[in-house]
Amino acid sequence: MHKIPIGVLGASGYAGRELCLLAERHPGMDLVFATAYGQRGQSVRVGGRDMTFLATEDARLEDAELVFSALPHGTSGEWVMRAQSAGSMVVDLSADFRSGNGDPSQTSSIPYGLTELMRDRVRTARVVANPGCYPTAILLALAPLITGGLIEPGSAVTIAAASGVTGAGHSPRPDLLFAEVSEDFRAYAVNNDHRHLAEMNAVVKDLGGDADLIFTPHLLPVARGILATIVVRLRQPLNDPLSVWSSAYAAEPFIEVASATPSIRDVVRRNVVRISATVAANVRQPTLIVTAAIDNLMKGAAGQAVQNANVMLGLDETMGLPA
Amino acid sequence: MHKIPIGVLGASGYAGRELCLLAERHPGMDLVFATAYGQRGQSVRVGGRDMTFLATEDARLEDAELVFSALPHGTSGEWVMRAQSAGSMVVDLSADFRSGNGDPSQTSSIPYGLTELMRDRVRTARVVANPGCYPTAILLALAPLITGGLIEPGSAVTIAAASGVTGAGHSPRPDLLFAEVSEDFRAYAVNNDHRHLAEMNAVVKDLGGDADLIFTPHLLPVARGILATIVVRLRQPLNDPLSVWSSAYAAEPFIEVASATPSIRDVVRRNVVRISATVAANVRQPTLIVTAAIDNLMKGAAGQAVQNANVMLGLDETMGLPA
Amino acid sequence: MHKIPIGVLGASGYAGRELCLLAERHPGMDLVFATAYGQRGQSVRVGGRDMTFLATEDARLEDAELVFSALPHGTSGEWVMRAQSAGSMVVDLSADFRSGNGDPSQTSSIPYGLTELMRDRVRTARVVANPGCYPTAILLALAPLITGGLIEPGSAVTIAAASGVTGAGHSPRPDLLFAEVSEDFRAYAVNNDHRHLAEMNAVVKDLGGDADLIFTPHLLPVARGILATIVVRLRQPLNDPLSVWSSAYAAEPFIEVASATPSIRDVVRRNVVRISATVAANVRQPTLIVTAAIDNLMKGAAGQAVQNANVMLGLDETMGLPA
Amino acid sequence: MHKIPIGVLGASGYAGRELCLLAERHPGMDLVFATAYGQRGQSVRVGGRDMTFLATEDARLEDAELVFSALPHGTSGEWVMRAQSAGSMVVDLSADFRSGNGDPSQTSSIPYGLTELMRDRVRTARVVANPGCYPTAILLALAPLITGGLIEPGSAVTIAAASGVTGAGHSPRPDLLFAEVSEDFRAYAVNNDHRHLAEMNAVVKDLGGDADLIFTPHLLPVARGILATIVVRLRQPLNDPLSVWSSAYAAEPFIEVASATPSIRDVVRRNVVRISATVAANVRQPTLIVTAAIDNLMKGAAGQAVQNANVMLGLDETMGLPA
Repeated sequence: MHKIPIGVLGASGYAGRELCLLAERHPGMDLVFATAYGQRGQSVRVGGRDMTFLATEDARLEDAELVFSALPHGTSGEWVMRAQSAGSMVVDLSADFRSGNGDPSQTSSIPYGLTELMRDRVRTARVVANPGCYPTAILLALAPLITGGLIEPGSAVTIAAASGVTGAGHSPRPDLLFAEVSEDFRAYAVNNDHRHLAEMNAVVKDLGGDADLIFTPHLLPVARGILATIVVRLRQPLNDPLSVWSSAYAAEPFIEVASATPSIRDVVRRNVVRISATVAANVRQPTLIVTAAIDNLMKGAAGQAVQNANVMLGLDETMGLPA
Repeated sequence: MHKIPIGVLGASGYAGRELCLLAERHPGMDLVFATAYGQRGQSVRVGGRDMTFLATEDARLEDAELVFSALPHGTSGEWVMRAQSAGSMVVDLSADFRSGNGDPSQTSSIPYGLTELMRDRVRTARVVANPGCYPTAILLALAPLITGGLIEPGSAVTIAAASGVTGAGHSPRPDLLFAEVSEDFRAYAVNNDHRHLAEMNAVVKDLGGDADLIFTPHLLPVARGILATIVVRLRQPLNDPLSVWSSAYAAEPFIEVASATPSIRDVVRRNVVRISATVAANVRQPTLIVTAAIDNLMKGAAGQAVQNANVMLGLDETMGLPA
Repeated sequence: MHKIPIGVLGASGYAGRELCLLAERHPGMDLVFATAYGQRGQSVRVGGRDMTFLATEDARLEDAELVFSALPHGTSGEWVMRAQSAGSMVVDLSADFRSGNGDPSQTSSIPYGLTELMRDRVRTARVVANPGCYPTAILLALAPLITGGLIEPGSAVTIAAASGVTGAGHSPRPDLLFAEVSEDFRAYAVNNDHRHLAEMNAVVKDLGGDADLIFTPHLLPVARGILATIVVRLRQPLNDPLSVWSSAYAAEPFIEVASATPSIRDVVRRNVVRISATVAANVRQPTLIVTAAIDNLMKGAAGQAVQNANVMLGLDETMGLPA
Repeated sequence: MHKIPIGVLGASGYAGRELCLLAERHPGMDLVFATAYGQRGQSVRVGGRDMTFLATEDARLEDAELVFSALPHGTSGEWVMRAQSAGSMVVDLSADFRSGNGDPSQTSSIPYGLTELMRDRVRTARVVANPGCYPTAILLALAPLITGGLIEPGSAVTIAAASGVTGAGHSPRPDLLFAEVSEDFRAYAVNNDHRHLAEMNAVVKDLGGDADLIFTPHLLPVARGILATIVVRLRQPLNDPLSVWSSAYAAEPFIEVASATPSIRDVVRRNVVRISATVAANVRQPTLIVTAAIDNLMKGAAGQAVQNANVMLGLDETMGLPA
């Protein structure tokens, strides 16, 4: 089989490493370069092969038919433009062109790559903005409720989400040391202004939703995985809540609808979101409690990026992805 | 100093062990017996001393001026009655006599020992029902909002809480093995019917509250600690949210009001609740995000039990308790 | 491709579950039954498929061309005999027929399935005794030193090894609860009489070795993985210690010789042993420090069992195994 | 009671923080300053009190009767000299003046503060070099064997030790991030040249020992604690190995001799070493397996430093220390 040449920018972080591993094992991809500023020149084992990281400046972007950028927010955008000029398609894992971020006139032309909701736009795009990890789990859980008009208009949707520490990246911050994270749990960005909120609000609005998201992320003492617990006030009672997702996502290979509450362990190292929902007892207003789990590095980053790349390249959407 | 003779029923669980340790180190208490059905006859090291666990049947209840019962729910009630008949005061850590549990005609005569809210009733009681771990954190956080009339009437109060595994007790359940809990995180009782909800609803009603609690507990891969993240819709905007708690609890030795979001690490092995609050940005209705952290075995169980015992026995309320 | 029908006895433990997963994903195997006493009748998800566990008594052993037994020590032996009578080949993961265990007259006819050392005997065997997890790591590390005559005769070989908790099995023992294992580390069987010692001593003797093994296992707060640190006194100095293993194992697909000390993370979820060695400085006698890492559930149990089955069935030895 | 003014240099690392906490709670000490280069000017909560860290240059050394230095190796030595010139006593937690480090003519005049072995020299010293964490556990375990002449002369003593990550300090190294350490275990310094080896060899020689130490440290996925497993060849068989330590250390408040193998959990947050020993079965030469556990931040650093300070200051040796 012909293998499509692929490059990875920003390969030394957690998402970048996962991208290299997925690209290396992908039957339709040939990883031709990987860049990492801080580790340039270093030889790194990726799957069964030794690679030498380049400085990003030294990568021959034109050699790659498609480039993944896992460069930091703020830096990535420029390299996306350069890769596009060099003739490459790009999946950008940074926030630079995501809905709700940056310059709307620019981001509106770049599809927000929540693949299941944007497949048609992704198929013909040259650049795709890969969603953030929290938004991937939360928006895939909320979308059928929004498009089905099931949420009480004007109500608050309360989201408590928790992420493993790889979500905070690979930078050596003192607060991410083992001895600080182990046996601890804490909320952050508790005033409802996490960067991912703007991203989620923009998509909710695009989908026609009218709800106030109240989003509190937490840091978990685990390496990888996200669990979101979402409380939604319904317009009217629902008898069979799971059918909302099982019908909306019937044909989706990477969405699992489960009667049992998903846990992080169910999804780790897999490119899936796993969703469950239950009607709340003991309340006066009809209320749904929805839980959604993903692996932040897979469906929440590198896996979804490869899923988007598969669609952009005309490959089978599931190729090379662990489900 | 005269030491008051104390007994512990059900000493082999996590709360029971913590009770023995606190009683052993307490300058005003003398631990005269400890019982444990499964480990009766075994010698156990408690603090600096070796104790032999008795069968509960073999304890001379009358030897103790005050008995702590950490027996299982359903079993404890009977032993509380026996200890009372033998002339002992009792702090019952089970749910058997807590608000919202069991027979209301009976439980109404037994104060619910959330010490800070019920000190006057605890002072004269012969039996006190020690609160559950989640309710301790959540009700101490909610109480000033309820009594201050700050919550929008009829609104939902959404609570996502997470507990370390000692909250599930010391029984060897396969799902609590290290290899199952490590690197995982999951919600449970997601349909809003956890046993502690009835307890919280009863107290909220007693305090004059009118809100629907939606409570989703989660299991954390940590040994001890609870963090509750509570979203409250306010009747009207609040400028200085922290002042709600700092004024209500100004004189309380075991309540900390903090501008930084509390984490489990801040409170572990201490008999405190640590509370913070922030006004939510990016929403149309005035909304508060409150976080509260406790150690589930200290302020959430054994520590609060000793706090109640101190009040009942006329000792200094802080005696023998790590703050 | 023709798929060979396979059965798993004792599928509910950690090794049994891993066996089911490997068999389910194996391109040359068809998992036709799995048994689990305690969970008989339960439907369990294995890879992408739902299976119902049978009682071991209800399995039609004759339907499987090869049976893996992950039944407990003491119980397994009888089922190995039954499966053999029913015409099945067997890989027995219990200790019942391992070297150094049970009746020597019986075990001597059953090859000890350390595949790399016993491939020729495994190829023609109807029953293979799959090695224990510690012996797999330690014997593969020691074998080239023994067969090369490099160890000082009569000296002691000191082995400190540490295993993740899945090595202790899936039984709900109180001492394996998360809250007991987390943040702890301890040695066990410290008087040099662990069951695996007899197994190792028997193989060392078979290989012609003359050394006293002193083996101290430890329990690690991780789910899976074993690291063994082995100190060996040499007959004479060695200039290039790694060449001992890189030449002995040059053609082996599942043995990695590394200049950097291996860590558990290097081998988890892979059917490999990773070995390194360094000459000790600051000592008078020539001394080697050897480290070896495996995943106790893969190369230390289910993976090696499949490796043996591949050899017995005439399949490619690496088929279906993650390297 | 008169409180002695105390200063802490290098208060932001793990040992420095623990020192501040111990000094703050110590009934005979008054913590008058704490310095931290990187965090100078920051307000930090220490026990029940807020402190502002100074730059080390800005500390008035003469205000402290005794100074603890937890500055980095290489830097500390100069500040020890300055503090001494300013008239302060010093306990130096760095390696700069420890036995086996630095200039022997200088270090020989500064007692090596393994309190139980050097109490008389510590009592009259103005400067004490506080031992490293591994040496504390290992030397207290070995000393009675050496001074009793029980070890086979010229033999190797094999030591596998494992430490929690706080032993590696508070610097934000990528390899100490939670996501790297969790679920991993590895050896380091495997060629027998760890800095602590020279320290141990020097003390072994001072005690009259003639043995080659082979020391392999490992990194544990726990926050704190050290376990050392030591294999010793004996001159002749020992019937009652525990009596070696129980008689040598009969009067020691901080040494526990136990028949059960100690685990990290037994000693965490306590200023003790806990030692056990067993005769090895299945070997030809009489061999002892000794295990010793300490908390690397307490008996292995800050706790022992306070113990030394108590002796230097003429206070009760146990004052302010959790046993």
